[in-house]
Amino acid sequence: MIGKKIGILGGGQLGRMMLEASMPLNLDISVLDAAYDYPSAPICSKFILGDFTNYEDVIKFGSELDVISIEIESVNVEALEVLEAKGKTIYPQPSVLKIINDKGLQKQFYLDNNIPTAPVRFYNDKSEILSEIENGTLNYPFVNKLRKGGYDGRGVSIVKSKDDLNLLFNAPTIIEERIKIDKEIAVMVARTREGKMVTYPIVEMEFHPTANLVEFLFAPSDLSKQIENQATALALKIAEKLDIVGILAIEMFIDISGNVIVNEMAPRAHNSMHFTIEGCRTSQFMQLLRILLGLELGNTKLLQPSVMINLLGEEGYSGLAKYEGIQSALETDGVHIHLYGKPITKPKRKMGHITIVNQDLEKAKDMAKELKEIIKVKA
Amino acid sequence: MIGKKIGILGGGQLGRMMLEASMPLNLDISVLDAAYDYPSAPICSKFILGDFTNYEDVIKFGSELDVISIEIESVNVEALEVLEAKGKTIYPQPSVLKIINDKGLQKQFYLDNNIPTAPVRFYNDKSEILSEIENGTLNYPFVNKLRKGGYDGRGVSIVKSKDDLNLLFNAPTIIEERIKIDKEIAVMVARTREGKMVTYPIVEMEFHPTANLVEFLFAPSDLSKQIENQATALALKIAEKLDIVGILAIEMFIDISGNVIVNEMAPRAHNSMHFTIEGCRTSQFMQLLRILLGLELGNTKLLQPSVMINLLGEEGYSGLAKYEGIQSALETDGVHIHLYGKPITKPKRKMGHITIVNQDLEKAKDMAKELKEIIKVKA
Repeated sequence: MIGKKIGILGGGQLGRMMLEASMPLNLDISVLDAAYDYPSAPICSKFILGDFTNYEDVIKFGSELDVISIEIESVNVEALEVLEAKGKTIYPQPSVLKIINDKGLQKQFYLDNNIPTAPVRFYNDKSEILSEIENGTLNYPFVNKLRKGGYDGRGVSIVKSKDDLNLLFNAPTIIEERIKIDKEIAVMVARTREGKMVTYPIVEMEFHPTANLVEFLFAPSDLSKQIENQATALALKIAEKLDIVGILAIEMFIDISGNVIVNEMAPRAHNSMHFTIEGCRTSQFMQLLRILLGLELGNTKLLQPSVMINLLGEEGYSGLAKYEGIQSALETDGVHIHLYGKPITKPKRKMGHITIVNQDLEKAKDMAKELKEIIKVKA
Repeated sequence: MIGKKIGILGGGQLGRMMLEASMPLNLDISVLDAAYDYPSAPICSKFILGDFTNYEDVIKFGSELDVISIEIESVNVEALEVLEAKGKTIYPQPSVLKIINDKGLQKQFYLDNNIPTAPVRFYNDKSEILSEIENGTLNYPFVNKLRKGGYDGRGVSIVKSKDDLNLLFNAPTIIEERIKIDKEIAVMVARTREGKMVTYPIVEMEFHPTANLVEFLFAPSDLSKQIENQATALALKIAEKLDIVGILAIEMFIDISGNVIVNEMAPRAHNSMHFTIEGCRTSQFMQLLRILLGLELGNTKLLQPSVMINLLGEEGYSGLAKYEGIQSALETDGVHIHLYGKPITKPKRKMGHITIVNQDLEKAKDMAKELKEIIKVKA
């Protein structure tokens, strides 16, 4: 089984960290993506230059492989369906990607399965939104989301007033009712081809007190046991109803009344779960590899309280990346720095992340805040 | 500092595991060795085909680099001396390699510094040994060791009777007095350019009850606190007297009277210390990287009791390696399998290793014994 040829669509940092996890097992992992300077390229078994959204490229890539997975969901699903029909093992399955890649279908899935989620309206184009505004059935502010093609903040418009109407997408979109959010969390489920499931410790986001930005993520969460159980049960239900084989990250809100509400999900390794590399016995990346190899699920127990911060490209700097403050951070016990090897930095680009493990979670949080001041990615 | 160009002489499994440790930091690490199918080749930044025992090859390789280290000590030391004189950072230093690469000089170093070691005799050639046998001052059995060029069991002859005299080396050699060994242990010291030092938990070898073979290695050891302290103090003394910058593995015997006696040392990552990857916060590989980068030493505390077994090529099989029993081993919690990616197996070739971590050391030992029966490397 260890001899299977594995392929990953996408060669960014998530693919790279999966390759890193695979190193001790010397697995044969090929990667398809668009440029030789992407993070996965230098360390995969075989890097294939191509476009994972292109039908022909994905067919050609997949034909050489036994098992195919993804590090990004916006891949050519039609090609994966053809490959699946030809007998290739594809996790997550194309059927799952079809639902998740369309925010409308994803919402419908929640509604059909009684999964609590923000009330939603569906639109075929911009004119339908404008007429609702005109007749007073839709009020500012609202968030307009493209059903397809959005990723990492793209495809989402915040419309606060008439002045923002130029931001509306003229394509199938959704608008969700606003939730009064108390907390944001993420839950990960791993599920095998036999339907066995396991969840990871819930991670909670801490926001900056004034700026509306995630400051860091931490586990274990501050949630009550009851809400934790509710969120975990919900995640297991979603994974089962989706019938996903692979790993599934689910972002949830806790509203100000204490209700658990599903925001959205990703059928792959997820930024919020990077703490699992050092914080858990089996990382999210190793877990996906285990599932691809047909092994039993690995232990997801939290070994040590963990805090994760993203290393984003500093505002005002574009060009060859330079890292400030890395050295002193590296010298602090329990601080694990991950640099993704992207040669070029841009404002807010994910250039790396840092996980701080410490028996004392509050101490780890304080260290995270300090490190955020010290480490800067400039050009 | 993170931008330094690092080079490693040797592309075997020790180099590979150093590269694996470096992955999250995306370091620029080049490797020099003789074939493209060596373990380090597919994952290093730049693989240079060449012979690390060849003066020209080492000079050419080193000229492009800022910092040079090794994964094997039998490299061309003259070339490293020239590179050092040109201002390259070379750890361990050529002066240390000179002493360690010559078993005669190594022994003399122990004697000069009052380090307990087996009494030794020095010979320039075979005839000097034969005349001692003739005049009755040397008795069978004895072990004849080449001063230079021995590695991993090569360069060592066990002479039990007259019939084995053909095994004597006709070159500078040593013969050590036999020690009545109770236990074999290894200690690792890491030392920075500023002379700061730290030691790793002592690892103890467990021998098969009937066959004279190491069955597994384990940490923490079963030694008394007093002997542990003695061994650790000895290791620190050796590292300081050698003035080594880097990591130093020292193999020691505990004789049947409880004396700690130094056997030999290696100025690099060492097989006996592989448990540090999962067993300690900072692995031996990451520790060497920290030293090369000029960082403070990492925490060497044992996180969990650990047992390590080598995966050796099964007797009677040569050819394309096939791994038996890997799958079930991978499914056992706490079992970490490392395959070095050598395409060809030979009897006793080091093809990988397994570390078992468990809060209960005895349980980990039992698991190691079971795994030895299950996992086989055949062809």
